[in-house]
Amino acid sequence: MTTAKLNKASEQLAFGGRQIRFTHSSEVLHCEMQFSVFLPPQAEHKAVPAVYWLSGLTCNDENFSAKAGAQRAAAELGLALIIPDTSPRGEDVPDDADGAFDFGLGAGFYVNATQKPWQKHYQMYDYILHELPALVEAELPLNEERAISGHSMGGHGALVIGLNNTEKYRSISAFSPVCNPTDCPWGRKAFSHYLGDDKSLWQAYDASILLRAKVSAPPILVDQGTADNFLEEQLKTQALEAANKESNNGAQIRYQEGYDHSYYFIATFIEEHLRFHAGNLSSKQNI
Amino acid sequence: MTTAKLNKASEQLAFGGRQIRFTHSSEVLHCEMQFSVFLPPQAEHKAVPAVYWLSGLTCNDENFSAKAGAQRAAAELGLALIIPDTSPRGEDVPDDADGAFDFGLGAGFYVNATQKPWQKHYQMYDYILHELPALVEAELPLNEERAISGHSMGGHGALVIGLNNTEKYRSISAFSPVCNPTDCPWGRKAFSHYLGDDKSLWQAYDASILLRAKVSAPPILVDQGTADNFLEEQLKTQALEAANKESNNGAQIRYQEGYDHSYYFIATFIEEHLRFHAGNLSSKQNI
Repeated sequence: MTTAKLNKASEQLAFGGRQIRFTHSSEVLHCEMQFSVFLPPQAEHKAVPAVYWLSGLTCNDENFSAKAGAQRAAAELGLALIIPDTSPRGEDVPDDADGAFDFGLGAGFYVNATQKPWQKHYQMYDYILHELPALVEAELPLNEERAISGHSMGGHGALVIGLNNTEKYRSISAFSPVCNPTDCPWGRKAFSHYLGDDKSLWQAYDASILLRAKVSAPPILVDQGTADNFLEEQLKTQALEAANKESNNGAQIRYQEGYDHSYYFIATFIEEHLRFHAGNLSSKQNI
Repeated sequence: MTTAKLNKASEQLAFGGRQIRFTHSSEVLHCEMQFSVFLPPQAEHKAVPAVYWLSGLTCNDENFSAKAGAQRAAAELGLALIIPDTSPRGEDVPDDADGAFDFGLGAGFYVNATQKPWQKHYQMYDYILHELPALVEAELPLNEERAISGHSMGGHGALVIGLNNTEKYRSISAFSPVCNPTDCPWGRKAFSHYLGDDKSLWQAYDASILLRAKVSAPPILVDQGTADNFLEEQLKTQALEAANKESNNGAQIRYQEGYDHSYYFIATFIEEHLRFHAGNLSSKQNI
């Protein structure tokens, strides 16, 4: 008999489904974590596929849950949403020395840190890839079909985790992702601290480098607003476009005229992303 | 030549429309105020009708803007959303002596205060009914068709302002409204301070009393969650039902099984409310 590892902190009805916040003790991150899940109405009587959503800098699981309006389309499409936090948490977890928003708490960058003092807790890559799916698939009505998406730092995380693990994710999408973190200020700061100075170790966490080397990537959809203040210096969408062209992977990389980096942008296009994932998730289901 | 009285603090694209935050100096409230507006794509080339949204305790204009997902349906239906704050603001504005959430700042209750020290600033009824529509209709592409809606304290505000001014609002809706404030703790606290001890002066601000006396109310839609913790003590939906039955006004008062008092509830049903208002607003447009 297994013992439940997830503690339900709250549950609210939304669009006929269940918006639930869980807490649990993470073995990978060595701390207490919280995350949110939306279970669509269909999950009441069958196992459903899940879209993992990785949030951006400063966020926790509440931002996407409250602001994206994703539950409406997820309820229609029969998709669960799995919405983790963006870093390990707690008083024992080291933070940026100056409390900056772009490193440390709220800024795990979805890597496995190798450097002190970060390596004990900052193992977000393994948390998202292994621990969290195992937990939710053991205790919730999910099948093992997964897609992955995210915003900004989380768009980077979705692309990197998805491209490195194509057997685990049917499709990948991103809003305003950090496309080339080895070549932007946010990425260089985070990677130098979490991973150290050997830049060859950074490459496995750079979506543009990964896509360029990929022979056959899964379906990918990326949306980027043209009025996004971070586009030129931090996001480097052009690097991802170049890698896509060079590798002939056929990722859809779209510029949305006039949209910025905010949740209004995400809310506007999240339905298209969920339909994209649903198409890829259900295609195998329906055979 | 008129001078603009509205200052644009921010503007973001959402669902093809414009989400704008304005600041202005309020003559009625004697303070600087901010509010948000969503202009649908249709407003780029014609004047559109507006749905006023009155928020609940502790909120400002950002809660509904960010969490309700209302822009999607508003963009489709060609409705502007006018989203005011819930009280006067600023250091000069008196607040609850204990900083309680249910009175003072963030809790104007949409009345015109008559008592010191509240009467100078707490004139939210006149602000919503007169000053704000005059401002936005002078400077934004709005026609003079209006509907009014709101949540909790704001549901009370929408019902009271709508029922008292049926010539100004085509339709009224509310989520989880405070239906009978003269007979609940929130209402008694607020009214005794803002309006004084003469309870006959409270009646013009009680939706159940107003609806009971109404011969021909405009179309009204009310949604109330059955899992709402405030239902029994504060919201008193049954009083509104009784008034509706007694006056034969035909308001739709619906209980939604399992929903609570949160924005997840609002997000789930806001599209139905906006379609309800659009039907009433466009009915005259199309003649």
